[in-house]
Parts: sequence; C-alpha cells; structure tokens
Amino acid sequence: MKSRAAVAFGPGQPLEIVEIDVAPPKAGEVLVKISHTGVCHTDAFTLSGDDPEGVFPAVLGHEGAGVVIEVGEGVTSVKPGDHVIPLYTAECGECLFCKSGKTNLCVAVRATQGKGVMPDGTTRFSYNGQPIYHYMGCSTFSEYTVVAEVSLAKINPKANHEHVCLLGCGVTTGLGAVKNTAKVQEGDTVAVFGLGGIGLAVVQGAQKAKASRIIAVDTNPEKYTLAKEFGATDFVNPKDHDRPVQEVIVEMTGWGVDHSFECIGNTNVMRSALECAHRGWGQSVIIGVAGAGQEISTRPFQLVTGRTWKGTAFGGVKGRSQLPGMVEEAMKGDIRLEPFVTHTMGLDKINEAFDLMHEGKSIRSVVHFENLA
Amino acid sequence: MKSRAAVAFGPGQPLEIVEIDVAPPKAGEVLVKISHTGVCHTDAFTLSGDDPEGVFPAVLGHEGAGVVIEVGEGVTSVKPGDHVIPLYTAECGECLFCKSGKTNLCVAVRATQGKGVMPDGTTRFSYNGQPIYHYMGCSTFSEYTVVAEVSLAKINPKANHEHVCLLGCGVTTGLGAVKNTAKVQEGDTVAVFGLGGIGLAVVQGAQKAKASRIIAVDTNPEKYTLAKEFGATDFVNPKDHDRPVQEVIVEMTGWGVDHSFECIGNTNVMRSALECAHRGWGQSVIIGVAGAGQEISTRPFQLVTGRTWKGTAFGGVKGRSQLPGMVEEAMKGDIRLEPFVTHTMGLDKINEAFDLMHEGKSIRSVVHFENLA
Repeated sequence: MKSRAAVAFGPGQPLEIVEIDVAPPKAGEVLVKISHTGVCHTDAFTLSGDDPEGVFPAVLGHEGAGVVIEVGEGVTSVKPGDHVIPLYTAECGECLFCKSGKTNLCVAVRATQGKGVMPDGTTRFSYNGQPIYHYMGCSTFSEYTVVAEVSLAKINPKANHEHVCLLGCGVTTGLGAVKNTAKVQEGDTVAVFGLGGIGLAVVQGAQKAKASRIIAVDTNPEKYTLAKEFGATDFVNPKDHDRPVQEVIVEMTGWGVDHSFECIGNTNVMRSALECAHRGWGQSVIIGVAGAGQEISTRPFQLVTGRTWKGTAFGGVKGRSQLPGMVEEAMKGDIRLEPFVTHTMGLDKINEAFDLMHEGKSIRSVVHFENLA
Repeated sequence: MKSRAAVAFGPGQPLEIVEIDVAPPKAGEVLVKISHTGVCHTDAFTLSGDDPEGVFPAVLGHEGAGVVIEVGEGVTSVKPGDHVIPLYTAECGECLFCKSGKTNLCVAVRATQGKGVMPDGTTRFSYNGQPIYHYMGCSTFSEYTVVAEVSLAKINPKANHEHVCLLGCGVTTGLGAVKNTAKVQEGDTVAVFGLGGIGLAVVQGAQKAKASRIIAVDTNPEKYTLAKEFGATDFVNPKDHDRPVQEVIVEMTGWGVDHSFECIGNTNVMRSALECAHRGWGQSVIIGVAGAGQEISTRPFQLVTGRTWKGTAFGGVKGRSQLPGMVEEAMKGDIRLEPFVTHTMGLDKINEAFDLMHEGKSIRSVVHFENLA
C-alpha cells in the first residue's frame, strides 16, 4: 500500500515528504496507522549522522500512537481496530531479560531493530523500488508502519492520541526513571539536569513521588516556568556560577541530593550529576544519550564514598505490561501530558518541528497525519 | 609513656623502629595496647607518597587488635581490659550518616582523621619532642596507640588477635562488599578482580552467599590456589588473552556476571570490572583505592543498558555494631581468617612485610609486638 511519510534520505538533510510503499505485515508483524507522533531529540541525533547505528534512507520517529489495520500470521495480542503505542523497547515475555524480573531490556528484536530491519532481516518500506529502513522498531514518521507484535502496547481506545503518543518515549522515560530506576521516596531530594521533555517528565515524576526538593538545572531560564508548574522548587543556571554546578548544588543541600538525573546526553553534565549526589547513598541516573565514542569519567573516590551511578532506558518500563496503565493514569489526569505539547503540525511541517527543538523553542512538537491526500 | 613503634619518617623510606612518646588519652579517647596488626596495601600506598592525604612523620597501620589500657574522660563504651579492634571508619551513632540507616560512612572524626590528628586537632605521638602524626584514626604500628572511643569495636576477649586483627580492614571489606554493598544472592555469578587479601575475602564472601560461579581474575596464577580453596570456580589470567578481559568474561558467561568487584585500585581494571557486568542488571563494586587524580571512565551506554557502578568503604560494615558479630563468626569458623595469614613476624621485621607484599609473596603478614624490650 501507499503511505505518506517523512523520509530521512541521508544524514544532515531535511526530511522529505514522499509517498512510500508499505508491504503487508509478515508473521508476527502488525500494520499500524499512525495518527500522531512526537518529535524527539533521538530522532534529531540519528538524523544528524552522529548515531553510529543510524542507517539511511530511513523512516524515523519512535514516539507515536495509532490504530491497528492488519495483523500478520500468528498475531494474537492485537487485532484490527485496537489502539496502540509502538515500543522501541519490545517486551516478548520469553527472553532471559523479560523473565528476569530485573529489567525491561528485552532482546527479542534487538539485533535486527538496531540494523533498521524487521526480525526476518528485511524491510517493509520502499520508495521507487529501493528499500527504506525502519527505525527503532517504530518508524512513526510514516502514516502506515509495520511493527513487531512484541513491540506494541494496546491502550484504551478512548485515549487522546495527541497526548498519549508522548508515552511512547520521553514522558515515560522520565517518569519511569524516577519510579523504577531511582525509586525516589517521599521526602527525598532530587536534581534534574536538562529541562527538555524528559527532564520535565522527571520533575513531574519527582513531584508525584513527593520529593521534598526538586532542583531544576538548565542554561535556558525560559524552561523554568514549565518546570515550576510541574513541581520544581529550585532553579540553577550553570551560567550564573563560575564554579562547577555540582559544587553549587552540594552547597545548597549540605551533602548533595539523594537522586540526580541527566536528561541531556552531555558526558560533562553526567559527571556533574554524579558528583552532586549525596555522600553515602546518593545515586545518579543517566537518561540522556551521548554522542558516539564519548565517555563519562570521575574519580573512583566518588563511588567509594557511597555514590551509585546508573542508567535507564525507557525508564525501566515494560511497555506491553505497564504502558496501558500509564495511559489510564494520563486519562485520569494523574499523569499530565498536555503541557508538554507546545506545538502541533501536519506531517508536511515536520522539519519545522526539528527547527523548533534545535532552537529550544518547543518542549514537544506533535505531528499529525490529518488532512493528508 | 614510651612505646615501640614503626615510624614512617618520610615518603618512600623504610619504616624506622624507634621508641616514641605516647600522651595519655584525652576526653573521648582510649589508650590501646596493640597485640597484632596486619600490613595492608593502603599502608604501602600512603608510605609511597602517592596518597594526597599522607602526612609525615606518622605511625601507619590500621588493621589491628589489642586491649584497652586506659580511657579518657567521658568514655563509657569500653573499659581497661576490654579487647578491641580499632576502626578507620568510626561509628558515632549520632551523625546524619549513622542515623540514615543507609551507610557506614560516619563523619564524626572524619575531618581530623584525614589530617593525621585526634579530634581536638593535636597528636598524642611524639619523638624527640617533635609531633608524629596518627593514621586513619588507628596507628596500629605502635604498641601503644590512642584511638577515639567512636573508633573502637569491643570484641570477644577469647578471640585470637593474630587472626581477628584482619577484620580491622581487608577481610571485613571483602566480605562486607559482597553482603552489604552488592547483596549477592544464592545462584548469582561473580567476578573478582585481584586476589590479594580483599579479593580473596570477596571470594570467600561469594561462597558464603552461595554464588553459583565465582570467576577469579589475577595476573599471578600463584594466587589461584588459595582462591580455589575459598570457593573460586573459574580462573582468568588477563595475560593469557589478547583482548580485553571483560570480553573474555562476557563470552564465558553469555551476558556477563551479576556482580563484579575491583580489589586492586587500578582504574583500567575498574572499567573492565564494570564492562563484564551483566546487561540489564549487573553491578560492579569498586573496592580498591586508586592513585591520586586517577579517573575511571566508560561509555555511558554501559549504564544505560542496565549496569550499575558502585563503590564501598570497609564493606559497608558499621564497625561497632557489626564487627563484634563478625568476630564471633570467625571464632565459630563461619569466617575463615587463618588462611589469609601467610607470614607472621615481630615489629622489628615489619619492612619485610612490605617487601613480601610488593613481591606478591604474601597475602597478609601479621606483625606482633611480643618479645619487645
């Protein structure tokens, strides 16, 4: 079938809106009609060419919501008409990792997903007869996309896709990092580095966990307004200080914060986040994705004196098991999604979404597929 | 009073056996007659001059056992005749850290201890009228030493000091890292980097925790014998492989080990230890003390894919609360100390203990104060 899609034909180039061909779903696969998709920094990272796993041409996008159109052989967990969120972290329920009860890092489709193909090693997308690669197992920048069954969370059909698509990546990652990875407790202190979509979701999650103090750190003071609305209590602009920001935070708090979160992907900030964690028990969680080959470093003394350095992917959330419940929470207002959506636009304007993000003017732009030919 | 002591007069010099003057204990202090002391790598590290906190001249030694001779004003928890182990990690029970229930890193005497003085800022040791500094709050290389009350664990008077002195540092650190910091569970897999006293104690601790597989890593195959006796199941000599040892261990285990421990103080080995931890949930614990200014590094991807980097000091053990019980365990044979003691000698031979350690010929040399003038 034909599908309108924003295709990344090469690194560093704007996306091109073209009509691609989408092949029917094979066994264990599902054809999904995407209604809305967020535009995330990870899409921009891959588009820039800095992502070592990036392959071109590809249909990017990994933060979407849609409806099942057709299922391949053997698919039993979803049927046409079901509302779904595609998952870049699958949940097969059967691999060593899914069965461990310790992690959400399912390996069912990991190897092929990283190469931009479906589990059988081929792609369902093509343009003028040439294959187009998939992206993160989702490819939500195409109106019609093919996703593995294990990579689909079935959600309440009454959910607002314009909002819940954000649970496909950023907001879930931030909320999950607080709840699943750091396990923030009532009264704990928190520092959040970077107030993009993920950082703001961390702030919201920390408030939900009843943290006593939420220190929001960003070089762009315009971000403080929304951070405050989500519950941030203190604001630090590293540019206002002529010493490392970790020293400022340790001084503000006495011995540092119980939990810190890096939500940027900057390895220097990751160090700051670790080093502002409380002596004896503070922990720092890396959420941001750093550029290829970049490394984090610190003195081992920081760890020997009781700090813990962790990371998280998709907030430790098991998508098929847990995302439907988070959608319900969002529908009840217990998770607030609407403030993240600062811009909406049709697919034809998707490059503007990237521009707004690079200029720091948006939290999330949500692209919809309405009014398409 | 007079006391025979091995004094470090300057960095890089052999210790000199001299008779020093020991002033009486002040308020909150205790005079202890040391009967036995282990010689640990940390003593050698400070003696080398590489320790940025090292001050000279000093009485080193921090792994001892002895008997209380005299108590200063206000001391209530020990009395003359009590058997004790000095603690380089105090336990006041009243500071933020002691009360947290989350760490053993008491700060009661931390600031002054790091400077080589007693809590009032002065030293109890002198030689020819010149002050001699304390070390790690213990200074067990003097027959008579003065220790803060909060830095003394009162132990069973029937314990064998030649063995239980090792609970003052190395063995407790290794056992505690397994039990308190990593919390190794039955069936878990473990890798131990460095088979000195601490590494061997980690091996013993992992066996006590019923680990299913204990991979011992050392460049000196002579260490494997004792490691095997303590429960190691696999042995890896990094020199036998032309690729990073973490790759070897990941291949041996499929996805890496549940827990790894760095027991050397080498920042490159710390990286190997982290990177051989299991994707999704593996954790690596830094025990070794690195040289001044040295840093650990890795790609943040290692953490984002579920590994955790931690450290431990004194194995997370609260000395006054928990060490007496560990002494009881040793007396029952549930903690084996005797195999660690490969050499014993009088104080006059203490420099030989350092030589044996540097040559890799000893696990622990225990120095006693018998037959002294």
